[in-house]
Amino acid sequence: MRAPPGSRADYAHFSQHTTRWMDNDTYGHLNNVVHYMLFDATVNSWLIAQGLLDPREGAAIGFVIESGCRYHGPMSYPQIISAGLKVANIGSSSVRYEIALFPDSSDVAAAEGFFVHVYVDAKTHRPCPIPQQTRAALQTLQK
Amino acid sequence: MRAPPGSRADYAHFSQHTTRWMDNDTYGHLNNVVHYMLFDATVNSWLIAQGLLDPREGAAIGFVIESGCRYHGPMSYPQIISAGLKVANIGSSSVRYEIALFPDSSDVAAAEGFFVHVYVDAKTHRPCPIPQQTRAALQTLQK
Amino acid sequence: MRAPPGSRADYAHFSQHTTRWMDNDTYGHLNNVVHYMLFDATVNSWLIAQGLLDPREGAAIGFVIESGCRYHGPMSYPQIISAGLKVANIGSSSVRYEIALFPDSSDVAAAEGFFVHVYVDAKTHRPCPIPQQTRAALQTLQK
Amino acid sequence: MRAPPGSRADYAHFSQHTTRWMDNDTYGHLNNVVHYMLFDATVNSWLIAQGLLDPREGAAIGFVIESGCRYHGPMSYPQIISAGLKVANIGSSSVRYEIALFPDSSDVAAAEGFFVHVYVDAKTHRPCPIPQQTRAALQTLQK
Repeated sequence: MRAPPGSRADYAHFSQHTTRWMDNDTYGHLNNVVHYMLFDATVNSWLIAQGLLDPREGAAIGFVIESGCRYHGPMSYPQIISAGLKVANIGSSSVRYEIALFPDSSDVAAAEGFFVHVYVDAKTHRPCPIPQQTRAALQTLQK
Repeated sequence: MRAPPGSRADYAHFSQHTTRWMDNDTYGHLNNVVHYMLFDATVNSWLIAQGLLDPREGAAIGFVIESGCRYHGPMSYPQIISAGLKVANIGSSSVRYEIALFPDSSDVAAAEGFFVHVYVDAKTHRPCPIPQQTRAALQTLQK
Repeated sequence: MRAPPGSRADYAHFSQHTTRWMDNDTYGHLNNVVHYMLFDATVNSWLIAQGLLDPREGAAIGFVIESGCRYHGPMSYPQIISAGLKVANIGSSSVRYEIALFPDSSDVAAAEGFFVHVYVDAKTHRPCPIPQQTRAALQTLQK
Repeated sequence: MRAPPGSRADYAHFSQHTTRWMDNDTYGHLNNVVHYMLFDATVNSWLIAQGLLDPREGAAIGFVIESGCRYHGPMSYPQIISAGLKVANIGSSSVRYEIALFPDSSDVAAAEGFFVHVYVDAKTHRPCPIPQQTRAALQTLQK
């Protein structure tokens, strides 16, 4: 039995995403890959806005080690997608983000997914603790 | 000698586009390909909003036969891009769209491009006249 | 504890995929989204080669209802990726594909993922049984 | 009057590219944007194979300042695309690459495009002369 689709109340932070003609595949719906583009865009925009991610100069960066998505229903360009974000688990060096995608004004998630970031040293790429300032901010997204 | 970058006053219609982590390439800037994704998204959104494009059921559809872009400066995720649109030429079966991309609040185009649609019969893919209602709407984008 | 990366011997069918400059993200590695593009490309190429998928005219088509990926190590353009494919479960209307990605001549999977197709009627989009000819072919990919 | 499509004999170097399910748009053909992905992939693969491009550590890198494409006919996933490459102009700091795309075994280009790289200092991003070793290699692609 699949868990039913989530609603906006299940998520802590929201961002808007425009879609593109190219996102639609032969069947006229957002290709299943596009969802992951929006997951990445959602999380990294939040990190950058918080001053927690500097891809070029940061000492620690997050590498994705696992991701997944359940698709509840179709979305299509040119719909506007609201992405809901929350943090499910915070470990010593890893964090699990959960993201839901809501097309236009819908309160029923058309898709829900996650990914796990492991923090690594930007030079050596070896795992390192989540920076303290990042950890504090992540806690505000727990729900 | 290259023509200088255009400004918003040179364009007739504007739309907003969000960017994605994946749009940035190894150099940390929007890859040159992303601009074309935004050109397509801009024009087709306008057509759909006008009721002039039905990709699944329409009798006539536009095929791109030529495109191009001049890149004036870098853009990067997570910037918001404003796309300015105008129509440069309307032939019997073809139309040339010109699009400029303005990052955030800039009034200097970071890129300017175009593409040419030829209208074809959706079933036979043979060129056909631009539908009359489409032609009338396109004229409102001339500048 | 994560399961260790799989090897080529764990998979039933292989295909080659070229990478693109745009696949590399700011960190110089294949963005985590690209893996899903290759999963789709792998499965659908196999279906098309078997004469089992006609996206425009087929009576039944597969919709992705769940997907996931574990990332074991980095890959980068311009590496050539070998994709190993197997079928893990065949239900009455759904099938679970598992795919591993091997960069260049490596026998250690850099990533392993899956997706679940539910067969739907191409017109009504309601679930339908897996076509008999498809079922027989899927069984040859079980391992 | 459009120039007729080129043939393989017009180009100096060839590479093979696989396509992806996601490359096909709603009309079932390669979206016009995909061609530019293949142009980038073609040129940069050649540069990397020649030892002339190190995106992370190189002293000089090429920025795209202009690109364009003429589309002669459709291509579709899962076709294999051969890309023909030649160098049309070599200036003091810029080079114009021309690329043609041939689906499967066709000798008639389905698309022909170009882009212009300006070499810039990797740190300051100011134009610099084409490195001498690069210039010598580029001359071998003139035709």
